[in-house]
Amino acid sequence: MATQRYSPSRPCRLGDVTSWDFETDVIVVGFGAAGASAAIEAAAAGARVTVFEVASGSGGTSAMAGGDIYLGGNGGTPAQRANGFEDTTEDFFRYMMLAGGPDADEARVRLYADNALDHYRWLEEQGVPYRTTYLPGKRQAPGTGDCLIWSGSEDAWPFNRAAKPCPRGHLPEVVGEMGGRRLVDTLARRALERGARVHFDARVAALVADDAQRVHGVVVRIDDRQRFARARKGVILCAGGFALNQEMLRHYAPQVARLAADGLSAGHDDGSGIRMGQSVGAAAIHMDELFATLPIYPPESHVKGILVNEQGQRFINEDAYPGRIAIYCMRQIGDRIYLLVDHAIFEQPTALSRIEVAAVGESWEEVERDLGMVEGTLVHTVQVHNRHAAKGEDPLFHKGAKWLKPLDEPPFAALACHLGQAFYPYFTLGGLRTLPTGQALTADGESVRGLYAAGRNCCGLPRWAEGYSSGMSLGDCTFFGRLAGRTAAGSPVLPEG
Amino acid sequence: MATQRYSPSRPCRLGDVTSWDFETDVIVVGFGAAGASAAIEAAAAGARVTVFEVASGSGGTSAMAGGDIYLGGNGGTPAQRANGFEDTTEDFFRYMMLAGGPDADEARVRLYADNALDHYRWLEEQGVPYRTTYLPGKRQAPGTGDCLIWSGSEDAWPFNRAAKPCPRGHLPEVVGEMGGRRLVDTLARRALERGARVHFDARVAALVADDAQRVHGVVVRIDDRQRFARARKGVILCAGGFALNQEMLRHYAPQVARLAADGLSAGHDDGSGIRMGQSVGAAAIHMDELFATLPIYPPESHVKGILVNEQGQRFINEDAYPGRIAIYCMRQIGDRIYLLVDHAIFEQPTALSRIEVAAVGESWEEVERDLGMVEGTLVHTVQVHNRHAAKGEDPLFHKGAKWLKPLDEPPFAALACHLGQAFYPYFTLGGLRTLPTGQALTADGESVRGLYAAGRNCCGLPRWAEGYSSGMSLGDCTFFGRLAGRTAAGSPVLPEG
Repeated sequence: MATQRYSPSRPCRLGDVTSWDFETDVIVVGFGAAGASAAIEAAAAGARVTVFEVASGSGGTSAMAGGDIYLGGNGGTPAQRANGFEDTTEDFFRYMMLAGGPDADEARVRLYADNALDHYRWLEEQGVPYRTTYLPGKRQAPGTGDCLIWSGSEDAWPFNRAAKPCPRGHLPEVVGEMGGRRLVDTLARRALERGARVHFDARVAALVADDAQRVHGVVVRIDDRQRFARARKGVILCAGGFALNQEMLRHYAPQVARLAADGLSAGHDDGSGIRMGQSVGAAAIHMDELFATLPIYPPESHVKGILVNEQGQRFINEDAYPGRIAIYCMRQIGDRIYLLVDHAIFEQPTALSRIEVAAVGESWEEVERDLGMVEGTLVHTVQVHNRHAAKGEDPLFHKGAKWLKPLDEPPFAALACHLGQAFYPYFTLGGLRTLPTGQALTADGESVRGLYAAGRNCCGLPRWAEGYSSGMSLGDCTFFGRLAGRTAAGSPVLPEG
Repeated sequence: MATQRYSPSRPCRLGDVTSWDFETDVIVVGFGAAGASAAIEAAAAGARVTVFEVASGSGGTSAMAGGDIYLGGNGGTPAQRANGFEDTTEDFFRYMMLAGGPDADEARVRLYADNALDHYRWLEEQGVPYRTTYLPGKRQAPGTGDCLIWSGSEDAWPFNRAAKPCPRGHLPEVVGEMGGRRLVDTLARRALERGARVHFDARVAALVADDAQRVHGVVVRIDDRQRFARARKGVILCAGGFALNQEMLRHYAPQVARLAADGLSAGHDDGSGIRMGQSVGAAAIHMDELFATLPIYPPESHVKGILVNEQGQRFINEDAYPGRIAIYCMRQIGDRIYLLVDHAIFEQPTALSRIEVAAVGESWEEVERDLGMVEGTLVHTVQVHNRHAAKGEDPLFHKGAKWLKPLDEPPFAALACHLGQAFYPYFTLGGLRTLPTGQALTADGESVRGLYAAGRNCCGLPRWAEGYSSGMSLGDCTFFGRLAGRTAAGSPVLPEG
């Protein structure tokens, strides 16, 4: 009976707790990149830390990522400087502000931009290995052990008008496995070394709050028994997003229905952390922002192709980050999206992408007919593109000159990148409203005492899918996870790196 | 000091109430269309009802509307039948389901579709006057006293593929003033006749809730004094949306930044009702859905024009409801949107629309040059359109034949409908998650006891801006306001109409 009274949306009242099974200073819910970073720093600040992780091991969804972290500014990271990129803090800041969209959080971006190099050093100190090598071109999780890549839209319109382009994706030195796994394993190990107590197979079912909605702990199920865990200083929710919660997706990000792929998740992004925050009055913001991506590369040569909708119209500069491209695909009328390529740039797309050849022809007229498009529409689009591409120009969508090439070498092909068919993996960007310190806030901006959040459990740096760059979520998880850990422990200032 | 403890986001604890200044069965917050309908029905069900309205008079934002209510099905309303429209309940249902978007609420739509004729009779019984006359064509708040108009996208793609088109906007018999004002005045008067006690200039500051988050009443400021009002049966939030709350707009619907107009509001859509619901654990859903409209008509002839973005591309069937058109305008890259017209269809746009002539030419080449568009783009778009329009076809966007006309009679003009310049008024569609009965729900679908919501304070029938039709919001406010009133009073079944 007691169990029925609690749920993520219905906190356990403090008065209902007859005795505590655990007592600690700081409880961290979730042991991915955000939770591990929070645990390390809370412990380093002298707090007793207990982590509850629903899975049987650490990592969460962070472990599925390529592992790059978005870093720069301050004259450049070691990898940036070694390769001649003198990234200024202001360029970094301006890029991040534009990437944050119409509600970019200036205080958060400023803190991150000013401290990104310190954060890089901190990651190294925890044991994350970085080389100083650079891979030019368009890459996604290359798996070579090299460090620096272009991981966003830095050199693409409109971002290249706002800030000097610079590569900022920093991959750990890992060959042949996902860098995200190495990153979180390293951080998790360090959290344990720092003295954090970690309980696996421990599902946090609800918060414990008093009448004034101050959070005092959690209700957690371990070994099929309900336990009560007290956090004297605070609870930090690092339980991920809601990419697996179909009801929440329908209520907050229903555009997901147009995608064939499943949510990117290690299996526990059920939104329970967000719902727990809401249960004590914290607001959840930008819940409609769904990061999705259409991996048109590799092969890199396909960036020289052009994307058209089923009306045969272009709609985006194809050199933008694939996450931005996917958002624009979802804005078109109709689910059919084609990538047009010619013989010179065609390579077989990766099987993973589920991008298939829809039509081939010796002329664009033939391709247009094969696709059943209205006569003259696709042909016109290619003609306009080719005429300007030959001059290194794209007056319509401002694609960069290096990716412009007339599509004039037959045979020609249209590759199907259809919504509902091609691989558009996604995860959620919306979450609890917080201060940069992790402090959870109500819709009126008041503090929910005793409650913090980090990672995709909150709405952090990446809050606008159009502006996402690879590495922003892990950068946010680790940096603001750290800050939440220190804040909850009562020592909010970041230490020197 | 006491006042600082409460806010819309921070409920007053029941234990903090030392004495009640008011005691009643049902408290209704807000006296617009939803609140008045709720008050009438709660009183009719035998409950003592107290209404708190922040303004000095009734009406809220409902009073600013044209006043049409979206009704049909069941073989047709009197106005539909008198004009030969035998609207079936299934067509009405299918249209409403498509209009509700990917998260259309089937239970809510079914209830509304099945009872729309009863609701029409109820409105008449309250004293809302309806004629049975019909105005064909494209109309917005004609102000002639006639009843039936085409108020949505019924006869436009893709809606006309899902359901047999039928006009369903029902305007009250009002000449020369806004029908919404007459509607709410009538309902407000009836609520008073039914015995509801109404307090104007009464700002509800917070809910009163017990430790289990059951709602027991409200804290309300009247005459600059804080009072405590007890609702034995329930509180119904009918306090409107958040079109005036800049912080909420930034966090939930930041696309509003692209619009020049102010939110449509009588002055109190500050989202406080939504925040109060959230403060006791109710979820707010579809908060990003922003109804906006681009009134390209009157003049009706302009529906025969074509809309293009700054790349010179069409992007929508221009015979869709202007609210749908506005959403697609906001999806284009760049803020410049043009309506292309020729001499035959041009009339001066209304001053209200802020649609101005951007370029005029004897040929489309000249217009294209004047607008600084890439050579051949606009001309191609018009050529493709004209070629098919001459045959009564629009293979690209499926505009209806009656609105298709080649734009081939010089002089030609491009009318500027730019975002950030033309008149795109808006209001918010997101709000508290509720059952059709008005019962407020948490993110896990659990009831928040003692709390109900209706109108734009909740997320109701209209929850997808792309699918909005004029009259859907007032239909939702009045019908589900009634149901919330009866439910809170303990008598949830709708009476016979």
